[in-house]
Amino acid sequence: MQSKTPKISEAVVRRLPIYLRYLQHLFDMNIRTVSSHELGQKLDMNPAQIRKDLAYFGEFGRKGIGYEVIYLIEKIKQILKLDRTIRVALVGAGHLGIAISNYNQYLKENLTITAIFDTDPKKVGTSIGAMNIYHLDELSAIVAKQEIEMGIITVPAFAAQEVVNKLVAAGVRTILNFAPVTLKVPANVHLRNADLTTELQSLAYYL
Amino acid sequence: MQSKTPKISEAVVRRLPIYLRYLQHLFDMNIRTVSSHELGQKLDMNPAQIRKDLAYFGEFGRKGIGYEVIYLIEKIKQILKLDRTIRVALVGAGHLGIAISNYNQYLKENLTITAIFDTDPKKVGTSIGAMNIYHLDELSAIVAKQEIEMGIITVPAFAAQEVVNKLVAAGVRTILNFAPVTLKVPANVHLRNADLTTELQSLAYYL
Repeated sequence: MQSKTPKISEAVVRRLPIYLRYLQHLFDMNIRTVSSHELGQKLDMNPAQIRKDLAYFGEFGRKGIGYEVIYLIEKIKQILKLDRTIRVALVGAGHLGIAISNYNQYLKENLTITAIFDTDPKKVGTSIGAMNIYHLDELSAIVAKQEIEMGIITVPAFAAQEVVNKLVAAGVRTILNFAPVTLKVPANVHLRNADLTTELQSLAYYL
Repeated sequence: MQSKTPKISEAVVRRLPIYLRYLQHLFDMNIRTVSSHELGQKLDMNPAQIRKDLAYFGEFGRKGIGYEVIYLIEKIKQILKLDRTIRVALVGAGHLGIAISNYNQYLKENLTITAIFDTDPKKVGTSIGAMNIYHLDELSAIVAKQEIEMGIITVPAFAAQEVVNKLVAAGVRTILNFAPVTLKVPANVHLRNADLTTELQSLAYYL
């Protein structure tokens, strides 16, 4: 991916897993090729938009034939760096953290939560499934040892900035934040705020 | 909104709350007008795409001036039907359900969870914040009484189809499902699956 331009927007990147999921569904159905028109119909998107999104990364389709499903799956996995195991740290073993940890078995494509962190003495030293709960002070050591690359923040808002600072200091550069607060990170860190509100707001349209 | 065409894609609808959030930020900063170019820069989107999205709903901008922030906020709220209070039922008072209920205070724009449902006798009759936990058998009566229009499903996968059936039978037509399972609903029901996997997958791109 050395050749990729810095112009690819987050909006494009966020659509790739949506394509991936549907392509995997097609693969499971033994469908070998798909056109951008068919993808567009199923995903409720403009076929031209789909072709343009994919063309950022290479020439994957052929005129009159479309995309070879298995080939496009492999390519999107490569683009998203999902062709290897990505280890994730979750910080905050409250209700949301436990819920997401329980969900770990449903995470696919080599994403896996390998360590949970908290500061509550009652939680530290216990485990959720196969995931141990460590003290937040151990974050840097465990991130290095387990080669963790991604962080999920599920602590209360007041604690979130301290946690993101520690994740960044430990070398984690991609972070998903569930705390309802705006966090500051250096420019080389990719932080995304998970936001239930926007999900519910866009649903309201259909009332 | 009687005049709206059925051609507006879910992708467009899902972008409206993103515009709304940034416009509200501009409003808080006392900024009165904004161009599609400025919106595009901030939101990492093509300005033409933003103009096209908004043009589905009306002529909100003026050439050379852009959009009046307060006017566009009001219009997007109207489009999303967020200009009135929308009551939400949450089914499943496990870790995720509790986490989302605790998050209720951060839900803005007149979205509010007013009732929680479960089948566990230890939970039914208790409350989370101001929200009572009712037995699932009371769903239909409470939905009618509280004029609930939206549902959130946070039960385990095996119980989700039964819950969505009950929500639909109670007259709820827009549902956000967190259970990791594909649910069947009638064509007049708008069901969205919340999917943490796609969020994490698109983040992996930035590793």
